[in-house]
Amino acid sequence: MSDRRIPDATVVRLPSYLQVLVDLADRGVRTVSSDGLAEAAGVGSAQVRKDLSHLGSYGTRGVGYDVTDLLNHVSSVLGLTRERRVVIVGAGNLGRALASYRGFPTRGFQVVALVDRDPAVVGQRVAGTVVASLDDLPALVARERADIAIVATPASAAQEVTDRLVAAGVTAILNFAPQRIDTPRGVTVRKVDLSTELQLLAYYERVSDSEGSEQSRGHEARLA
Amino acid sequence: MSDRRIPDATVVRLPSYLQVLVDLADRGVRTVSSDGLAEAAGVGSAQVRKDLSHLGSYGTRGVGYDVTDLLNHVSSVLGLTRERRVVIVGAGNLGRALASYRGFPTRGFQVVALVDRDPAVVGQRVAGTVVASLDDLPALVARERADIAIVATPASAAQEVTDRLVAAGVTAILNFAPQRIDTPRGVTVRKVDLSTELQLLAYYERVSDSEGSEQSRGHEARLA
Repeated sequence: MSDRRIPDATVVRLPSYLQVLVDLADRGVRTVSSDGLAEAAGVGSAQVRKDLSHLGSYGTRGVGYDVTDLLNHVSSVLGLTRERRVVIVGAGNLGRALASYRGFPTRGFQVVALVDRDPAVVGQRVAGTVVASLDDLPALVARERADIAIVATPASAAQEVTDRLVAAGVTAILNFAPQRIDTPRGVTVRKVDLSTELQLLAYYERVSDSEGSEQSRGHEARLA
Repeated sequence: MSDRRIPDATVVRLPSYLQVLVDLADRGVRTVSSDGLAEAAGVGSAQVRKDLSHLGSYGTRGVGYDVTDLLNHVSSVLGLTRERRVVIVGAGNLGRALASYRGFPTRGFQVVALVDRDPAVVGQRVAGTVVASLDDLPALVARERADIAIVATPASAAQEVTDRLVAAGVTAILNFAPQRIDTPRGVTVRKVDLSTELQLLAYYERVSDSEGSEQSRGHEARLA
């Protein structure tokens, strides 16, 4: 499978290229140069050409890349060619924020359920979804054909919730809880640590300072 | 300044190494091998050695790295040797979630103010902080010596809020709003797109599937 040859450093930039391509397609733009893509994504153009060559996309000299072709290709590499159905566990502030996040549906992620343990919260309406009970998780996952879960619980509940999700058949988990979770083989987990972003911001600010004002921009589009 | 020689691909892994080192130091562990660091951070050990060599840290053969020395070094490279004071603009679900996020204070980020435009929200208490009015931003930033801001507003308010933050003297902005923001030179911006994480999860799940169950773990510690 050729995917394995795509370096992780390239993979983390693909969502950013995809975002630029979606914006271009929305505006009816048909081709884009590596320079144009680079500037919009906030990386160097040599980097863009190298990244896309890992995908087997080389563009046409003097023309650039076909926006639609490249968009489809990047989506396909990222596994985004079908709609993914997402269940969020934890209807606290973070779970509610994620349930109302407008960026998800536009990227093919449909939040189909928001679940909480607290009976006082179950039944509340959040962003068009009624909060369901954690006890109904197996039935919900089956009925809604959810295959991705977001854990947005306190640390203390993360492992138990994970075990329940795995038992219900979820195979991919995005973990926002500040707690490492263990899963059996066959379940893919990705941990999100929001303080990572602040640490990287602090790094780039410091580097910018030491470079003087000339170079102090251009970190905007760097990926999470 | 030697920082410029650190590749971005290495920089994004530094918060993850830092997290492992903090955990080790908390447990009283004094030295760590590149293998140990690699496993805990979820990357390969050759990668760890290469990343740390970019920082000028080489470890001692047969002993590994001194945990305290390396922790101080990585913190210093990331610019985390002093407490950073953070103001959050937008007291919606996301702003509230970020204001209560326990990961910030433990990494040296102190949320000193939460600000909103809505008079109905101003004065509410969130995670020990009283929501202040957007109009008080200049006084707040000065009094609290805030130097980092998080924009957690709707897209439509992001640019105006950014302009006000810059006018108030903030030099580093983490933008969670689904909207590109423009800033003058000297202000460092980092954009966070939460759907990026779901896209990367989908990618690693797909790659795991095509590898069979043997390799289907180990993405846990990959960085945001």
